[in-house]
Amino acid sequence: MVVGRKWILKHHFDGEVTADAFQLVSEELPPLKEGEIQIKTEWISVDPYMLPYTKSMSPPMTMIGSSVALVEESKNSKFPKGSSVISYAGWVERAVLNPETKMRTMPMCVPAPALPPGMNPSLLLGACGMPGNTAYFGFLEICQPKAGETVVVSGAAGAVGSLVGQIAKIKGCTVIGFAGTDDKVAWLKELGFDHAFNYKKVSVKDSLSHAAPKGVDCYFDNVGGEMSVSVMEAMNKFGRVSVCGAISQYAEAKNNSKCILPLCVFKELKVEGFLVPRWLHRWQEGIMAMAGWVAGGKIKARETIMEGFTNTPHAMVGLFKGTNTGKMIVKV
Amino acid sequence: MVVGRKWILKHHFDGEVTADAFQLVSEELPPLKEGEIQIKTEWISVDPYMLPYTKSMSPPMTMIGSSVALVEESKNSKFPKGSSVISYAGWVERAVLNPETKMRTMPMCVPAPALPPGMNPSLLLGACGMPGNTAYFGFLEICQPKAGETVVVSGAAGAVGSLVGQIAKIKGCTVIGFAGTDDKVAWLKELGFDHAFNYKKVSVKDSLSHAAPKGVDCYFDNVGGEMSVSVMEAMNKFGRVSVCGAISQYAEAKNNSKCILPLCVFKELKVEGFLVPRWLHRWQEGIMAMAGWVAGGKIKARETIMEGFTNTPHAMVGLFKGTNTGKMIVKV
Repeated sequence: MVVGRKWILKHHFDGEVTADAFQLVSEELPPLKEGEIQIKTEWISVDPYMLPYTKSMSPPMTMIGSSVALVEESKNSKFPKGSSVISYAGWVERAVLNPETKMRTMPMCVPAPALPPGMNPSLLLGACGMPGNTAYFGFLEICQPKAGETVVVSGAAGAVGSLVGQIAKIKGCTVIGFAGTDDKVAWLKELGFDHAFNYKKVSVKDSLSHAAPKGVDCYFDNVGGEMSVSVMEAMNKFGRVSVCGAISQYAEAKNNSKCILPLCVFKELKVEGFLVPRWLHRWQEGIMAMAGWVAGGKIKARETIMEGFTNTPHAMVGLFKGTNTGKMIVKV
Repeated sequence: MVVGRKWILKHHFDGEVTADAFQLVSEELPPLKEGEIQIKTEWISVDPYMLPYTKSMSPPMTMIGSSVALVEESKNSKFPKGSSVISYAGWVERAVLNPETKMRTMPMCVPAPALPPGMNPSLLLGACGMPGNTAYFGFLEICQPKAGETVVVSGAAGAVGSLVGQIAKIKGCTVIGFAGTDDKVAWLKELGFDHAFNYKKVSVKDSLSHAAPKGVDCYFDNVGGEMSVSVMEAMNKFGRVSVCGAISQYAEAKNNSKCILPLCVFKELKVEGFLVPRWLHRWQEGIMAMAGWVAGGKIKARETIMEGFTNTPHAMVGLFKGTNTGKMIVKV
């Protein structure tokens, strides 16, 4: 008899993310049917999108998310025992599943892409996974940055933001990052950001009048709300805003920041939101480009690792408090 | 000696547009120099953009705006005596000017385009002028509407909105308009809008759940603020928002509507603002297309005409109170 543990989201988050919204459950796993595999999760990804996504779902339910897992048993020849998979089965320690069922837009499991030697498989959840492709396509396709332009990144020390800033440097842009602690700001400067600011200590407006004297051309937005208004006020005509997320807004129903639409008109801004499955048909291209930059030392991928499956809810709470630098991840 | 009258904007509007911000001034016109012309204004256009534009200017100054004028005297062979011009000289009854100087992005004067027989020259300030091109390019280029799609227009009974709805019908779309009086709503239905609602009486959300059961694909926004949030909440994935104006926001520094950025993300919306001089190189194309549709009866162009140069400030006040249906215009 094999026992699997999983984290149940008991109910929607009431405003902020707290650990008591989750419950750890043990269950006996069923025997494998034809086509099924048994996985053992090794790395779990904890990401900002989880909060707004669960809002439209119906708890109680197994908490959603992606992970790197080992195939422990297999009745599916495409997923042999001992191989690695990227799983979208959620916060499960062990599970029996059919890898070919769909989890909304993503397949339940895909074989883990092969990374260059020496790269940790956890990168498949970060720089060489969904956050990597989010940065790669979401920035390059939507912002269409040109060498010499000025790029602002909010949430710059997060999993996606830190990659966007480094890609922008590779493309010859001047890069300005905003983050929420002095340590994060120091790290952004190590990564090669031209300017980095702690938005809790300085005004976005003043920072940009100093760091972007020619105005801002591209804005990669992870944050939303008041900060986004301030950045858009500093943008040039025909600026491009890639809206990757709005973490400051996910818990709030209303805010009192200015309406950005007048700015859109008078600066002729283009503001486009995206979800990264838009580029599923180019997924491998993005992963390989990112892996090449990481292997070549052009992109540094930092992780904040919490140990232990039982700590997964705390990783999620920490993510929304900003305790991570780079990718927040759980080592099972 | 020829005397010209003009309206001076004495100071910025303090919140709302009031007539006492203007002062009527008479002045003796100078003799014509080589290259100059003397114009007599016949029709003055009063438009929403004037409020936000003047915010970045330095009153006291001659109030800005476009008009149709007659050339009364000329020392410029391109603008012969007796010809008609589109003038950007502002709220002047008579003026001496060099038509080739620039008024920001626009030339001071251009020869008035020839309209099909029977069409009133005031249309050169509406359906066959800047508002016409704003509707034509701002809707077709930015929304890229496809036959069968659902289009929402806010400020639908205004000069631009009423044209956008009719263009959308020509393109085979289902068209829903929002306006602020029952009379305007009745007129929108006469124009062929599939649905029209008085947003002061019904909720935008409820209206759209009834009128747009398949969701909204394109939104042409003249209004901004809370209404725009509600429309975007009803939009389909990959919806396109053309932000023409945000009249509800021009007087306010802050509002308490939701931040639209989360909607941009999860619906993968593209929100693009524009200023119509972007298409100056295609100006004549737009005017001729619009004139053709008006002459062929496919587009009805309604005007709210106030009589008398001295009433120009009252036309402007009325515009922001929503007293106009269609184009607000002053007959000098």
